[in-house]
Amino acid sequence: MRDEPAFWTIAEAAARLRQRKLSPVELAQDALARIEELNPQLNAFITVTAERALRDAQIAEREIRKGRYRGALHGIPISLKDNIWTRGVRTTAGSKILREFIPPADADAANRLWKAGAVLIGKTNLHEFAYGITTENPHYGATRNPWDTSRIPGGSSGGAAASLAAGIGFGSVGTDTGGSIRIPSAFCGIAGLKPTFGRVSCGGIVPLAATLDHAGPLARNVADVAMLLDFIKQTDEPEGHFQRALRRRAKTKKACAKLRLGWPRDYFFASVDEEVKHSIERAAGQFEKMGARLIEVSLPHVEDATEPSTQIALAEAREYHESQGYFPARAEDYGEDVRKRLEMGGAVRAVDYLKAQEVRERVREDFRAAFGQVDGIIAPTTPIAAPHLGEQTVHIGSKTESVRGALVRMNRPANFTGFPVISVPCGFTRDGLPIGMALHGPEWDEAKLLRIAYAYEQATEWHLRHPE
Amino acid sequence: MRDEPAFWTIAEAAARLRQRKLSPVELAQDALARIEELNPQLNAFITVTAERALRDAQIAEREIRKGRYRGALHGIPISLKDNIWTRGVRTTAGSKILREFIPPADADAANRLWKAGAVLIGKTNLHEFAYGITTENPHYGATRNPWDTSRIPGGSSGGAAASLAAGIGFGSVGTDTGGSIRIPSAFCGIAGLKPTFGRVSCGGIVPLAATLDHAGPLARNVADVAMLLDFIKQTDEPEGHFQRALRRRAKTKKACAKLRLGWPRDYFFASVDEEVKHSIERAAGQFEKMGARLIEVSLPHVEDATEPSTQIALAEAREYHESQGYFPARAEDYGEDVRKRLEMGGAVRAVDYLKAQEVRERVREDFRAAFGQVDGIIAPTTPIAAPHLGEQTVHIGSKTESVRGALVRMNRPANFTGFPVISVPCGFTRDGLPIGMALHGPEWDEAKLLRIAYAYEQATEWHLRHPE
Repeated sequence: MRDEPAFWTIAEAAARLRQRKLSPVELAQDALARIEELNPQLNAFITVTAERALRDAQIAEREIRKGRYRGALHGIPISLKDNIWTRGVRTTAGSKILREFIPPADADAANRLWKAGAVLIGKTNLHEFAYGITTENPHYGATRNPWDTSRIPGGSSGGAAASLAAGIGFGSVGTDTGGSIRIPSAFCGIAGLKPTFGRVSCGGIVPLAATLDHAGPLARNVADVAMLLDFIKQTDEPEGHFQRALRRRAKTKKACAKLRLGWPRDYFFASVDEEVKHSIERAAGQFEKMGARLIEVSLPHVEDATEPSTQIALAEAREYHESQGYFPARAEDYGEDVRKRLEMGGAVRAVDYLKAQEVRERVREDFRAAFGQVDGIIAPTTPIAAPHLGEQTVHIGSKTESVRGALVRMNRPANFTGFPVISVPCGFTRDGLPIGMALHGPEWDEAKLLRIAYAYEQATEWHLRHPE
Repeated sequence: MRDEPAFWTIAEAAARLRQRKLSPVELAQDALARIEELNPQLNAFITVTAERALRDAQIAEREIRKGRYRGALHGIPISLKDNIWTRGVRTTAGSKILREFIPPADADAANRLWKAGAVLIGKTNLHEFAYGITTENPHYGATRNPWDTSRIPGGSSGGAAASLAAGIGFGSVGTDTGGSIRIPSAFCGIAGLKPTFGRVSCGGIVPLAATLDHAGPLARNVADVAMLLDFIKQTDEPEGHFQRALRRRAKTKKACAKLRLGWPRDYFFASVDEEVKHSIERAAGQFEKMGARLIEVSLPHVEDATEPSTQIALAEAREYHESQGYFPARAEDYGEDVRKRLEMGGAVRAVDYLKAQEVRERVREDFRAAFGQVDGIIAPTTPIAAPHLGEQTVHIGSKTESVRGALVRMNRPANFTGFPVISVPCGFTRDGLPIGMALHGPEWDEAKLLRIAYAYEQATEWHLRHPE
C-alpha cells in the first residue's frame, strides 16, 4: 500500500479502517485538508460539508470500534454532484434558481450510500442544471482540470471528476444525459460508468431529460467504480455482485481469452483526433495481446441518433423547467447557453419528439445486433482531449467543429439506447492530457463490461498516474 | 327463442348451430340477405365479403358436422371495422389513401376470431381514419342511423353499430380513441365495450393515436359483448372468463346487493340533455331497487383531461400520418375535417405533449381513488341522442356546443386513463332515439363491469327493442 491516502483504492482505505489502523475521522480530515488546499484553484465544490463529514466520520468510527462494520464504504469520504438531493444540505444543481434549495429528502442513490456508512465531504460543481459539457458555471465559477488548470474538466459532472483526479474523496455519483459522466472522466483521467438506464435510480435527482438521464459512479479506478455500483444500484443482484465479476480471470496472462471485442466500422472513428485514435488502437492491441479477438461491427443507424436525441433532450428539459415555473418565468436567472437551449426546447414539435422515439428503437436494434456478435465495443470516449476554458470550437484533422457537438455526438447514442458504457484512462496526449476509452456493453450486463475494463486496467498503468 | 335469427343472441345462434338445427351457411346467407336489403339505405359496409363468408361458413358447417366444434363463435357471422387488417380483404380505414390497400396479414383480434371459427361478412364504414365521431365519410358516404336515417349513427365505429342495431351480424370489433366504440353504441342502442388499455391488442389495426387507441367488441347485448371479449382479448384469463363473470347473481332479485355505484358529483353531469339525464337517473334507481348503494364520487381532475388528451391525440395522429408519408404529402386526399386536425397536430409542442402525460397521471389517480370507494361509476355515454347528418352544433339546456366537443368531452377521459367503460342502452328519447348509459370500471376488471351491466340488462328491456 502506498502511503498517500489520497490515491488509495477504496479497498485499500477500507482495509485500514476495518483493521482500525486508521480512523474514519482521520480519513475525512485528510480529504477536507485536500479540499482546502486544492479547491481554491480547482473550484470543484459548490458546497463543502466539513462539519457533517466529521460528524458522520465520528459515528462511523464509533460503529466500527463496536464491531458494527457496514461494509467497504463504511467511513469512506465521497462526494456527490450537486444535482443529487441531500437532505438538509443545499442542492443547487449549479443554478441560481436553486441557490438556496435545501432538499427535504435524500436521492435514492445518496440514501443507499448513507446506509453503507459513506461520509459526504461535499457537493461538486457542475454545468448549470447539468445542461452542458464544460462545467463553466456562470453562478459558481468554472471548475478547472487538475492536469492543466487552463483547461476544462469536461461536464456536466466536472467537479466530481476534477476532485477525484486531484485525490479528493474516493468516489462520487454523477449524472449523464449526453456524456456527463463519461466526458469529465475521460478529460480528468479517471473511470466513470454510465450504467444501463434504470440500474441506478434517478429518484431525487434534479432531472435534465427524463428518458435520457442516468446516474452512475465515478472513481479513480474500475474496481472502485464496481464497488460504488454495488452500493448505489436499485436492482436486486446479490451483495457484491459487480465486484465479484471483476475477480474472474483478472491478472492472468490470458485474461481476455475468448473475449470478442467490437471495433465499430462506422461513426465512432469518423472524426477523431490522431493522438486519441492512436491510444484507442494501442488499447485494442493490448486486448489482443491478452487473448481477445477484435471483430469489426457495424452500427449503421448510430449516425441518425444525434439529431433526434437532441430533440428529445431539448423538449424534456424545457418541459421540466416550464412545469417547475422556472422557465420562461425566470429566464434572466439562467446562463446564456442553458437559456438558449431551453428556448430551443419550446420549439420542438410533438411530432418530431414522437418520431425521435422511433429512431431510438432502430439505434437500439443496431447495438443489440452488434452485441449478438461481440462482448463489448471499443470507441474513444471523446474525439479530443480537454480543450481550454472558453474554447468554442475544436479542429479535428482538417475540420472545425463546436466543442459541444464533438463531445456529444460520441456520447449521446448510449443515452438514447440506455446501454451501459464505461470510460477508462488509456493514454495521454503529448501535452500530458488524459485520453479516455469508452467500452460499450450490452444492456443490463455491467458485470461483463466491468470485467473487460478491469482486465485492461490491470494490464496497464494509466490509472496510476496523477496530476502534480 | 325468437324466430328471427337477426336478433338472436350469439348463444341462441350457437346453440342451434351446435345442435345442427341450422347451418352456418344458412346463417351467413341470412346476414348477407339483410345486408342486401338494408345496406343501400344504411351504408354501414365499405366492403361486403359475401364469397368469403359463404366459403368460411361451408368450412364451419363441415367442421361442426364432423364434431370439431370450436366454441360459441363457430359459424357466427361477424363484421369488422374497416381499420382492422384482414389478410386478403382490403382495409381502407375509411380513407382514399388506403382505398386499394390489401393487408398482408390479419390484425391480432381478427386472427383470434378466425381461430374461433367466426365468419366475416364485411368491413364496416367508419369516420375517415377513425378520426371523428359522425361517420360522415367523404369517400364512402355517410352511414345512417337505423332508428332514424336522417340521423348519424355516431362514430367512428358507426358502420359496426348501425349494422348490429339493424340485425346484421352478431358482433363486431371496433376501435375507440375518444369514444369511437361507445358513442355509436349509445346512438344506435347497442352495447359496446372500450376495454382496459392493452386488453385487446391493437396490433394490425391502422392507428389513430397510439397511446389512446383501444380495440373492443360491439354487440346487441352485454352477454354477447362478454363472449366476444373472451375470444378477442390478448390477456391470459382462462377460457370463458368474462362470460362466467356474468352468471354470478344475475337474474336474482337482489342481483346488485352489496354493489356500490358511484354517482359523479362533477363533470359527467355538468351539461347533459334533460331526457338523457332522466334516463340515467332512472337507471340509477333501477340499480338501487336491485340492492345497489349509490355513492357520490368526486373526480376533480377529469375536467382538465379534455385539452391535454386532445393535444396527445393531435400529435400522435399527425406523427403516424407524417411517418407513413400520407400527410402533408397527400393532404388533398383527406376530407376537410380530418385534414384540419392533422394540420393542427403539426403545431403541438413537444413540451405540451409531455405536460399532457402528467395530467394523465392525475386523472388516473382520480379514478383510482374513486374505485377505492365504489365498484363502478354511472354516467351518460353522450350528453345528447343522435343528431341529424350535417349538424355541427347542439343545444344543451341554454348552451350551444359543437357536436364533436359535446361527445368527446364525455368519452375522452377513459381513453386518457385506459380504464374500461361499457355503454348499454338505458332508454329512448320522445323522438324514439336510443340513450346510452356509460358504466366506468376499475382497470383490468372488465369482469366486474360486465357483471354490473348484465345485471342491469337482465332487469330491463331496452336492449330488446329494435328499429323497424
